[in-house]
Amino acid sequence: LVRGMQMQAARAGVQGSLAEVALKATQARGFHLLRRKYDWVEPEAEELIAKAYERHKRYQEVGESFPPALSCENLEALGKVYHYEPKNLRDKIAYNTVQVLEKFMFLFFREKYDHHAVCLETVAAVPGIVASAHRHLRSLRTMKRDHGWIASLQEEAENERLHLLIWMQHTKPTFIERAFVMTAQAAFVTFYTGMYALSPVTAHRTVGYLEEAAHKAYNDYLEAIDKGDIPNVPALVIAKNYYHLPEDATLRDVVLHVRADECMHRDFNHHLSDLIQSGGIDDHPTEMIDEVNEMKTNKATSDTKQTASA
Amino acid sequence: LVRGMQMQAARAGVQGSLAEVALKATQARGFHLLRRKYDWVEPEAEELIAKAYERHKRYQEVGESFPPALSCENLEALGKVYHYEPKNLRDKIAYNTVQVLEKFMFLFFREKYDHHAVCLETVAAVPGIVASAHRHLRSLRTMKRDHGWIASLQEEAENERLHLLIWMQHTKPTFIERAFVMTAQAAFVTFYTGMYALSPVTAHRTVGYLEEAAHKAYNDYLEAIDKGDIPNVPALVIAKNYYHLPEDATLRDVVLHVRADECMHRDFNHHLSDLIQSGGIDDHPTEMIDEVNEMKTNKATSDTKQTASA
Ligand SMILES: [Fe+2]
Ligand SMILES: [Fe+2]
Ligand SMILES: [Fe+2]
Ligand SMILES: [Fe+2]
Repeated sequence: LVRGMQMQAARAGVQGSLAEVALKATQARGFHLLRRKYDWVEPEAEELIAKAYERHKRYQEVGESFPPALSCENLEALGKVYHYEPKNLRDKIAYNTVQVLEKFMFLFFREKYDHHAVCLETVAAVPGIVASAHRHLRSLRTMKRDHGWIASLQEEAENERLHLLIWMQHTKPTFIERAFVMTAQAAFVTFYTGMYALSPVTAHRTVGYLEEAAHKAYNDYLEAIDKGDIPNVPALVIAKNYYHLPEDATLRDVVLHVRADECMHRDFNHHLSDLIQSGGIDDHPTEMIDEVNEMKTNKATSDTKQTASA
Repeated sequence: LVRGMQMQAARAGVQGSLAEVALKATQARGFHLLRRKYDWVEPEAEELIAKAYERHKRYQEVGESFPPALSCENLEALGKVYHYEPKNLRDKIAYNTVQVLEKFMFLFFREKYDHHAVCLETVAAVPGIVASAHRHLRSLRTMKRDHGWIASLQEEAENERLHLLIWMQHTKPTFIERAFVMTAQAAFVTFYTGMYALSPVTAHRTVGYLEEAAHKAYNDYLEAIDKGDIPNVPALVIAKNYYHLPEDATLRDVVLHVRADECMHRDFNHHLSDLIQSGGIDDHPTEMIDEVNEMKTNKATSDTKQTASA
């Protein structure tokens, strides 16, 4: 398939931005693949998000950081809000669920963006573990392969848990916030487990929107730091270790890295929802880094062709 | 601590088998560490089990097999039955739970050891995922670190799931067996989740005994192959990939490797139960490979001392 796409892209003599190349390449693939799998974000953003996420993921897996050259300036570019437009009833249920949750969270925390972050992450780390357990039990029950969902979802949950542990050291939650977290966990685990059993499409879409909200919450956090409302203290050791930050890194750098992770979760969950909806519940999901590498291959091929025919 | 132990072991001028060295070394550590963490198996067996398990674990994590020189003859040595003697009421509850389950399984499957294996694995892959989810949610709720339990338990569950997928390709389960599995999963997930919430000590001990039963089931499987009751067909691709077996590997080789994994789960879960019981619910568990490496260091140190004073 990839080779076919490369040839078609090359034959079309595509030139220009990564976005155009990607568009032409996917158009060449035929009707059911007319669009990029992550087409609600721009290809440039997709590339940055994928790289930012691969960084700590690869460190955990093979003990090396990747890519070494991703800077905080790169991460600044991820402030842009992307929104997956609800397309059907299930999308709208998901969107409205999160709208209600978000209103409630903002009412509870108001301007305390750091405290907001701690509690947000205790909830954000639930869906990945519920969904991965569901897929695991499904694989056992049907005695069929899982096709790479379990590990990705566990990785998501672990990443969110690390966000929590990082914010915990920067912010001491109050007693009332801890009580809130206990109640929220019991309610949310029950709610999300039921939702996942009834409709995995709606469940992953809900996480997609939850992560859109998380992304906005971290935009607000950054703004509060820039305005001086929250002091830009030095980053703590746990954050510096996890993200491989330099000695003089600050809280702001940590927020930038965490926000990039939320972009990745947002887009991966929207993709999983799309995938199940299009009958791909037994397909291997396309991780962003795969789509990025595919686009690059297409571009390289078309560039070579251009040069050769010039 | 390790350095202190080495010095004490060296001072004691220990000589002899790995077992003796290990015993003296742990005795030197003081009262609460009077015994080896995995003292219900012999150190020689512990070393083999740890190596067999590290093999596919490391392959998944860093893409290389370890150690390359572990042979099927090594694995033959793991037929010996080790039993953790029940010490208190919780241990006895765990032991009797498994006794009942085991009787029931043998009644259902009788001499069909290959079919027994398929259904056993659909149950065996449940505790790891339940326990890891429990630890994950606990870490979120208490906002405290997990200390390495989650990943190890997820790895156990994934390893059991792979056992299932391997046996699935060797044995086509009947309709009645599939129905049995569905019912068993619903019942066991509920049962084990409740048990883990009430008493993690009893839950891990139960898995320890469940794995003792699994070990015996694979002993029976091997005997059936050796007697010719089950034909020793060539190993399938999925098993050869997972365990890095040579081209001409057979079903018997696969059973040997799977049995080594069951030894590891047995011992790790007994250790986790011990650890919680001794108040170490927030400690990093001692993986077998760590204890083995520690024993080797002690032995090397004492050998050097011997040579120097000779
Ligand atoms: Fe997060
Ligand atoms: Fe997130
Ligand atoms: Fe197993
Ligand atoms: Fe097992």
